[in-house]
Amino acid sequence: MHTNTAITLVKRPTGGPITADNFAITALPIISPKDGEVLIKQQHLSLDPAMFGWMSADTQSYIPPVALGDVMRSSGIGEVIESNNPDFAVGDRVMGMMGWQHYYLGNGQGLNKVTAPLPNEAVLSVFALPGLTATQGLFKVGKPKAGETLIVTGAAGSVGSIVGQLAKAEGLQVIGVVGSDEKANWIVNELGFDGAINYNSANLDEQLEKLAPNGIDVFFENTGGAIQPLIFARLNAHARVVVCGLIADYAKQIPTLGPSWLNVIKKRITIQGFTMPDHFAEIPVLLEKLTPYVMAGQIKHRSHVLEGLASAIDGLNLFFSGANKGKLMVKL
Amino acid sequence: MHTNTAITLVKRPTGGPITADNFAITALPIISPKDGEVLIKQQHLSLDPAMFGWMSADTQSYIPPVALGDVMRSSGIGEVIESNNPDFAVGDRVMGMMGWQHYYLGNGQGLNKVTAPLPNEAVLSVFALPGLTATQGLFKVGKPKAGETLIVTGAAGSVGSIVGQLAKAEGLQVIGVVGSDEKANWIVNELGFDGAINYNSANLDEQLEKLAPNGIDVFFENTGGAIQPLIFARLNAHARVVVCGLIADYAKQIPTLGPSWLNVIKKRITIQGFTMPDHFAEIPVLLEKLTPYVMAGQIKHRSHVLEGLASAIDGLNLFFSGANKGKLMVKL
Repeated sequence: MHTNTAITLVKRPTGGPITADNFAITALPIISPKDGEVLIKQQHLSLDPAMFGWMSADTQSYIPPVALGDVMRSSGIGEVIESNNPDFAVGDRVMGMMGWQHYYLGNGQGLNKVTAPLPNEAVLSVFALPGLTATQGLFKVGKPKAGETLIVTGAAGSVGSIVGQLAKAEGLQVIGVVGSDEKANWIVNELGFDGAINYNSANLDEQLEKLAPNGIDVFFENTGGAIQPLIFARLNAHARVVVCGLIADYAKQIPTLGPSWLNVIKKRITIQGFTMPDHFAEIPVLLEKLTPYVMAGQIKHRSHVLEGLASAIDGLNLFFSGANKGKLMVKL
Repeated sequence: MHTNTAITLVKRPTGGPITADNFAITALPIISPKDGEVLIKQQHLSLDPAMFGWMSADTQSYIPPVALGDVMRSSGIGEVIESNNPDFAVGDRVMGMMGWQHYYLGNGQGLNKVTAPLPNEAVLSVFALPGLTATQGLFKVGKPKAGETLIVTGAAGSVGSIVGQLAKAEGLQVIGVVGSDEKANWIVNELGFDGAINYNSANLDEQLEKLAPNGIDVFFENTGGAIQPLIFARLNAHARVVVCGLIADYAKQIPTLGPSWLNVIKKRITIQGFTMPDHFAEIPVLLEKLTPYVMAGQIKHRSHVLEGLASAIDGLNLFFSGANKGKLMVKL
């Protein structure tokens, strides 16, 4: 029998890039499912910026950290290869939090069957955590209205690209902030954004002025960084700020301060953070909301696929450099 | 005939204390009401921290600035002395935005009759802008639940003292932040707060730890200042921050930055600013909400009454020093 190659977290990152010594690659036995259990051979696993939070020692966060010695947490997609659970049959295609390993054994809780006739890459790119996050954050927190202006940071990323396309489909003016001209080109010419700003370029404030002459109504924040206060200063009355991610701060010892709250009063702004674990019960509703846009061809995506389990480790650093192009995942 | 002594804004404050040269005291004619108009002799006018915003040149704020040369904006209470408006009779007692002057002429819009058998000081302290602000901010934005912990800054102020008492009546644990031991004593021993912190004392974080060992669920912010990030760091999951005022920043050229948004994500915090002009249409509902607490004796107040129109000018500086004791107003 094969062994289950897995990657465990052995040392928490303390700022700076992720290195090989944060993890250990180990061979675990493959255990056959007991009564009620199901064994899955994972095919693709998702890499997400949220993982930096899961690796930290912060027990006050929205989800407990991964314990040292435990298999690193991740979502993925795979196939049921043995089942003692009446809800799952051999051959079923399922998504769930299966971790950095080839085989996942569980009682079926948290596993969702995938019936959409889409390749794994598309499922992880659109219907997994990023698509659900985009749908929840945009509609429930951002409350977009046709004719408004939305700006989304990390706009070529897995969440941001879907946020922007959903907002376009809803009739908003949509501006994306990205880290390269190639990404700027992609979101405007392929995804249909109205404008893009490369945060590595000059005169950011002038670019904002030009692209959002009437101010900004929804600010979907995935990154943080130097453009944050510039965007914040251009928010309109009753603007909504959806705080979804702050990748620019995850590796910092001392996080960047946020904008003064003076504008929060003057403009009656709402700043709201959210994370998906609070909304796992609403996933069916979110999928129902998201699916018609996908079916109508309004949600394009691209996947950045790394090869082999071990590539996950250094792959995380792509989030810091912004070198990933599209939804980052690992093919096992 | 008497003249209408009025104070007009002639120079916008640019940081630092308010001085006599920001204003001009002028004698205006008293004009008899035309058809539909009503003339009021103002008896008490209210001084509020919001005035610093109204005096600024910021045309992007929630309400247009007072134009240079115009009578300074304020709310007040007085008596109808002439009426050509069928809705108002001579002798009616009314509240409204009458400005820094002895006589107010208007078409009745924005004037509310006062029928409660309470002295002017009590009406301005509880049922005017501060009480409405407290009611709107606490219930609609703060969404308090019995058993939760609330902290309010400016807790001996006109808004904060009512916020805290309403929250106590709703069954919350209530901590107030004030600027003197005398005020700390007043909110605990007279108003029934569970605890008080003098922000001028030492070891603020230890005091917070002691008074809110289970963290903070509602943060009602009236002041800003050095205690803001300490409170923010102690917010619980799903905490609500009601941003009502930032008196510590109003006179600063460069406002203090806010807390990092990392905790906004981790704790799924909502930070929401509000101002009363958005909710003027809801005043009847707010009064209906507030009145039973007042009738049940759950809302105590104290007024700090200055004498004479000209005292309004230097009176504003009491907000910066925190030397006002209770609702600040001017008796005309």
